[in-house]
Amino acid sequence: MNEFEQYISNIKNTDASLFQKDILLTWESSVDELKTVLNIADVLKYLHTNNISAKLFESGIAVSLFRDNSTRTRFSFTSASDLLGLSVQDLDEGKSQIAHGETVRETANMISFLSEVIGIRDDMYLGAGNAYMREVGEAIDQGKAEGVLNQRPALVNLQSDMDHPTQSMADFLHLTHHFATADGSSSIENLRGKKIAMTWAYSPSYGKPLSVPQGVIALMSRFGMEVSLAYPEGYDLIPEIVETAGTFAEESGGSFNVCNSMDEAFQNADIVYPKSWAPYKVMEQRTELLRQQDTQGLNDLEKSCLEQNALYKDWECNEQKMLLTKDGEALYMHCLPADISSVSCNLGEVSAGVFEKYRTETYIEAGYKPFIIAAMILANRFENPSEALDYLRRRNQKRIHT
Amino acid sequence: MNEFEQYISNIKNTDASLFQKDILLTWESSVDELKTVLNIADVLKYLHTNNISAKLFESGIAVSLFRDNSTRTRFSFTSASDLLGLSVQDLDEGKSQIAHGETVRETANMISFLSEVIGIRDDMYLGAGNAYMREVGEAIDQGKAEGVLNQRPALVNLQSDMDHPTQSMADFLHLTHHFATADGSSSIENLRGKKIAMTWAYSPSYGKPLSVPQGVIALMSRFGMEVSLAYPEGYDLIPEIVETAGTFAEESGGSFNVCNSMDEAFQNADIVYPKSWAPYKVMEQRTELLRQQDTQGLNDLEKSCLEQNALYKDWECNEQKMLLTKDGEALYMHCLPADISSVSCNLGEVSAGVFEKYRTETYIEAGYKPFIIAAMILANRFENPSEALDYLRRRNQKRIHT
Amino acid sequence: MNEFEQYISNIKNTDASLFQKDILLTWESSVDELKTVLNIADVLKYLHTNNISAKLFESGIAVSLFRDNSTRTRFSFTSASDLLGLSVQDLDEGKSQIAHGETVRETANMISFLSEVIGIRDDMYLGAGNAYMREVGEAIDQGKAEGVLNQRPALVNLQSDMDHPTQSMADFLHLTHHFATADGSSSIENLRGKKIAMTWAYSPSYGKPLSVPQGVIALMSRFGMEVSLAYPEGYDLIPEIVETAGTFAEESGGSFNVCNSMDEAFQNADIVYPKSWAPYKVMEQRTELLRQQDTQGLNDLEKSCLEQNALYKDWECNEQKMLLTKDGEALYMHCLPADISSVSCNLGEVSAGVFEKYRTETYIEAGYKPFIIAAMILANRFENPSEALDYLRRRNQKRIHT
Repeated sequence: MNEFEQYISNIKNTDASLFQKDILLTWESSVDELKTVLNIADVLKYLHTNNISAKLFESGIAVSLFRDNSTRTRFSFTSASDLLGLSVQDLDEGKSQIAHGETVRETANMISFLSEVIGIRDDMYLGAGNAYMREVGEAIDQGKAEGVLNQRPALVNLQSDMDHPTQSMADFLHLTHHFATADGSSSIENLRGKKIAMTWAYSPSYGKPLSVPQGVIALMSRFGMEVSLAYPEGYDLIPEIVETAGTFAEESGGSFNVCNSMDEAFQNADIVYPKSWAPYKVMEQRTELLRQQDTQGLNDLEKSCLEQNALYKDWECNEQKMLLTKDGEALYMHCLPADISSVSCNLGEVSAGVFEKYRTETYIEAGYKPFIIAAMILANRFENPSEALDYLRRRNQKRIHT
Repeated sequence: MNEFEQYISNIKNTDASLFQKDILLTWESSVDELKTVLNIADVLKYLHTNNISAKLFESGIAVSLFRDNSTRTRFSFTSASDLLGLSVQDLDEGKSQIAHGETVRETANMISFLSEVIGIRDDMYLGAGNAYMREVGEAIDQGKAEGVLNQRPALVNLQSDMDHPTQSMADFLHLTHHFATADGSSSIENLRGKKIAMTWAYSPSYGKPLSVPQGVIALMSRFGMEVSLAYPEGYDLIPEIVETAGTFAEESGGSFNVCNSMDEAFQNADIVYPKSWAPYKVMEQRTELLRQQDTQGLNDLEKSCLEQNALYKDWECNEQKMLLTKDGEALYMHCLPADISSVSCNLGEVSAGVFEKYRTETYIEAGYKPFIIAAMILANRFENPSEALDYLRRRNQKRIHT
Repeated sequence: MNEFEQYISNIKNTDASLFQKDILLTWESSVDELKTVLNIADVLKYLHTNNISAKLFESGIAVSLFRDNSTRTRFSFTSASDLLGLSVQDLDEGKSQIAHGETVRETANMISFLSEVIGIRDDMYLGAGNAYMREVGEAIDQGKAEGVLNQRPALVNLQSDMDHPTQSMADFLHLTHHFATADGSSSIENLRGKKIAMTWAYSPSYGKPLSVPQGVIALMSRFGMEVSLAYPEGYDLIPEIVETAGTFAEESGGSFNVCNSMDEAFQNADIVYPKSWAPYKVMEQRTELLRQQDTQGLNDLEKSCLEQNALYKDWECNEQKMLLTKDGEALYMHCLPADISSVSCNLGEVSAGVFEKYRTETYIEAGYKPFIIAAMILANRFENPSEALDYLRRRNQKRIHT
């Protein structure tokens, strides 16, 4: 059985249907559903590498709505959509009439008549992004049910206030390949028992969203990994999500612990993921101030937070810290861009040396994202993903006609 | 004869060629030409619903130029272009060198070398939008004639100061389906004798373009409908277009009347289309002030207009008004977004109850627009539309490879 | 042998591989390599004219990065990409996180996972544009080598501070057709001995980039043409590039001379290319001032330069000047938009009469650009371009299914 057949067989075996289900938060999906997405992503990457077209759509629109800046996620979404045959149309709220009192329900339907997927990034306001995505989802459910829409577009969370599923799934897929078995085949099982340190790290900026650390702990805890979350006192994540990670660890036979020491988390870790974020209570305050357009309040908050951050400048992932990890050779991960000391800032999340050592690995990690997004679209829009993928192989259409 | 064959047969029977003709104003097209567009749109919707690809172009650019904000028309144009196989490229006058003294003729040719369609929205200045579109049309006529262009792109009016043909045609197509015959088949003939009330309605904003009411009266009057136009004294549309509607009504065996009472227009109506607009004389003044960049003048004009509007707050389409219509059950129409009382504003064009009752209908109405646009492109670019559509059915390429 | 076969045979005969080579500066490519691009462009235009699809990619992204405004080059790049089957995604530095300290290397990889081409315009800063493109090129070389990227995207210079290869190559292709042999077939050989006057011309604006005149003299000198460069004293181009043109003229059996008189350059010229630019020393100063954000300095520089320009108002290409050329009938060329006296400005680069006489020719000249860009992509991404083009003819897929 070759690589392709193995993935297809995995998909068939899990038998988990994601048809017309959005993965807005990975913790709402079953482990089998997540495995299906991972396997589909692997097949799509296999097809791309082997110059086989993955065009399942002859036409159709992929709507992209970014309420925050983005380069890599924007390109990942466009690439994923294009890979499957869809054309991206930005919903630019600046250009559109959304600002003029349109309801979410109406707009969601108006952009969906010939659309197959809607990708949304909305991570600025705690309590808002995930809620907005659900509202859009309900609107298009209703549009389909009422005969307004011929099809119900897939909804892809490209980062919300709560989760960043395309990031955490791409991160996890990277791990299945990095910790491949001897014959080179990727393996979810090999990650059982591996220790990952998801830690806060110092940054000279503030207000970074919580979705990455939250997404990582809630996902990695589902596959029997030893998840260690570390941050300076006060830099808590949303408590419910942390609890969920604990429950998942128990269920999956892994472990989950929270501590206030980077060193403790790094101790004997197989993987480290040091990344700055703002305490969720600060994000709540910030959301309130942004809503009130209280510029003075926002400036004061930023100032006090940066002062607070500055107390933890030793939370830098550097050569010394890496020595604490398993054989001093843990895999360093980051969602990029990282704040690299003496490169992108004076002092940041990671030393130049450590980053440079793992730079290529972080690029490879990022390279899984387009395939994860495409897999989420495919799983949502095709009742039988393994059949659709098998069709692509049988069709054997070259992607580039060399 | 099934639905598809019926539409194809209709197209063949009318035998009206729109090849290389732009529909900038519906009143410049023959009734048969308009019927052809409607039938093509129906076929394209049929193909989409039945998962048959309508890709007639393997490559080609669709240029979109929006001189006013838009969500729904932008998505409709992109969706229509993509359905036929074209890729949209925005002509963003902010990004481009148009502001630097380029002539319309030159730009029109420069963007057209590999382009198959140019869609333009230009509705802000009375006397300008339609004139600009004609200038572009002449430039590409000349470019084709002089050997600069291999093909002459279709020009689609996505809303001008005078007409909004993709809106009025989508509205009309909706009516042919809403008033279908017993066996469910759409019918233009069934609309003969139906009364439509195109009326002004109160809105707390001002300066809404005239193209929708003008487009509606000039189109609906061509198919034997009883068209009633109502507005408060002074809120006149462009007189020539109103005259045209009168002539059409006579020719088509329908009727056309103008009154200053919403109640009178609603009386026994089968369809109501209540929508705010600014008097054309105000639009003229506004255009002049915008050209002179007279901010004070614009503010004064807005103030006086809003005061004027406020005299007609009873021009709201509410439950009471709807009781006047045929069996109290007239179809409510709107191009969206509507100003909905106590939803998008305190008091607006339509009460929340009436809007909610017809909300799904207005969404379905909007859903015809992508197909109308695609039909206009197809009719303009293909010498024999029925043959092209027949080819699509024979090719029978799945749009989604499920 | 028909036209198509002639071009294919030319490509096979030169046997110059541009596979995975970027043409950032035409003077770094061999004459045979440039001929290959010209012939590929001719084939692609032939296919387009004859309604044969040139889609070699079933999916894939074309990244466009414009650091300066553009209409025609933007549309040319989009059209070229679409012709080959690629979808454009803008890298909008305003929207992206590039401004937040990302390194060029990282961004270059992040946008390239499923990308086949990256087109860049970066012409504002002398000493920066070409350097930036090289940095991007090295980043994706490395990304491919390190296994980050499945493919190494082609890099297309859409105008830098030094060269504008898609412009000069389109200009040259235009000449091969304009000076075709009696049977109508284009010919590079016919240009041998033809005199082209690349001259400065007066413009009421300042700061126009040097890339066009530099690109033109460095390219036209390679094919045995008599190249005459003329500008008022002080309006020098980058000296190294001027030297290169001289060397090329010697090697190719043509000639190259520099003078300070428009009349002298026009004398007996077969082709004139009058165009404004700023002295390279001014561009250096301007770059320095822009970097320092010295607004006062920039205003002072502009003022003094415009005063300087005003001394040379007689450098206008008008009917009198044209009388000096070969039979008074030299071909007028311009990259557009031109500053046309009494059309786009009071007094400019060319009189209204001369421009109008050659207007259609300048449009046709511009029309070659999309095909030149597509040819550069094809030559870079396909190991055997003649085979790829032959495949397209054999496949004989209609571009429009009429």
